[in-house]
Amino acid sequence: MESNLENVKALTFDVFGTVVDWRSSIIREGQQLTDRFGYKVDWAEFADLWRAGYAPAMDRVRTGELPWTKIDDLHLMILEELVPQFGLDDITAEELFDFNKVWHRLTPWPDSVEGLTRLKGSFIIGTLSNGNVSLLTNMAKFGNLPWDVIFSAEIFGHYKPDPETYLGSAELLGLDPKQVMMVAAHSEDLREAAKSGLKTAYVSRPFEYGPRHHNDDVLNEDFDVVANDFLDLAKKLGA
Amino acid sequence: MESNLENVKALTFDVFGTVVDWRSSIIREGQQLTDRFGYKVDWAEFADLWRAGYAPAMDRVRTGELPWTKIDDLHLMILEELVPQFGLDDITAEELFDFNKVWHRLTPWPDSVEGLTRLKGSFIIGTLSNGNVSLLTNMAKFGNLPWDVIFSAEIFGHYKPDPETYLGSAELLGLDPKQVMMVAAHSEDLREAAKSGLKTAYVSRPFEYGPRHHNDDVLNEDFDVVANDFLDLAKKLGA
Repeated sequence: MESNLENVKALTFDVFGTVVDWRSSIIREGQQLTDRFGYKVDWAEFADLWRAGYAPAMDRVRTGELPWTKIDDLHLMILEELVPQFGLDDITAEELFDFNKVWHRLTPWPDSVEGLTRLKGSFIIGTLSNGNVSLLTNMAKFGNLPWDVIFSAEIFGHYKPDPETYLGSAELLGLDPKQVMMVAAHSEDLREAAKSGLKTAYVSRPFEYGPRHHNDDVLNEDFDVVANDFLDLAKKLGA
Repeated sequence: MESNLENVKALTFDVFGTVVDWRSSIIREGQQLTDRFGYKVDWAEFADLWRAGYAPAMDRVRTGELPWTKIDDLHLMILEELVPQFGLDDITAEELFDFNKVWHRLTPWPDSVEGLTRLKGSFIIGTLSNGNVSLLTNMAKFGNLPWDVIFSAEIFGHYKPDPETYLGSAELLGLDPKQVMMVAAHSEDLREAAKSGLKTAYVSRPFEYGPRHHNDDVLNEDFDVVANDFLDLAKKLGA
């Protein structure tokens, strides 16, 4: 392990895309939904548009245009715009509400549970996600994610990449920022965490946006650790 | 199971005394500390006085006399008053700081881990404690407590029994208060939770204050469930 990492006590994880495969999960549940009606929907496109609406919706909260609004409600706002675009007019309000909760039922990447379990033996492991607390808690039960603690933007009243989220989780852990390592598949999240003094681990998730897409190109020198998956991360951290 | 309990989705637990045996843990670590010096200290009395200082210290926060102060710091304030009373003048600041963290290393009651593990199969299980987040997280790792989520007074900026704690945890779970059951060995905590609409389970911990002490006398009709321990609670909740 790098010598500047020996004081790291806790790992905080981005969740959507880093721990769980949101895209495949939405496609799978979407297909189950429309199979019942006999509709044809391009669920891959639907998933990508739903996800694409997420950052702009959060930015409306971050800039103060909207008061604090949790992700469940932002997801529902975006979903309600997509439903008519995809001709899903026969879906009931109850079905829509349940489908919106697909974000509570996202499937972990194949290495996530084993990797987290290994890392948990040497570190405190927690979420640090823009997902709300109930979403993250339900997702952990659904996917057997063995978190020690759930940190969410909802607790801090700020969305990542606001510094209140990175500094707030270190504070709640009773640790200095440099004793906490942010783990994510997204460069921006890590760069902002580093500005608050956290250590950083980039984990490659090349299929987050589907088979034809690629993740950020990163160089080893950009972050404290660069890993192929959570098992590789555990190995590189000596866990 | 009682029919009015069928909608309960989550159990939130008081921790000190309900899940863990603070008194025996402090006595054990205190004896280890003074064995090194050859001092004689009545650690049972010490533990009882340390614990007795806790409610008045929190009340100074609850009434606004002190700004928000986490339990680690309140514990240290009380400890610093006890040290000269017990003639522990040779203890170093570093030893004192470490001994204060004994509250992060409290031993679970013998049924706690098995009972919680069983309950976790049917419910979301979380802390709802006045302990700060790092204390509860470290304690869970120390004692293998399988929480789904850590709720702490520190997140709400209010100590129990302020209603913000009970209502805040239901809100973060995305549940109505009546879908959440507070579990505690202390009547007052449960009575205040009930005022906020939560369901209540009283669990008897007759040795919390030592071999000669007793817990509250409670009647079955005072709470939704009355149980002898967490295994009995699991049985009574059908978990």
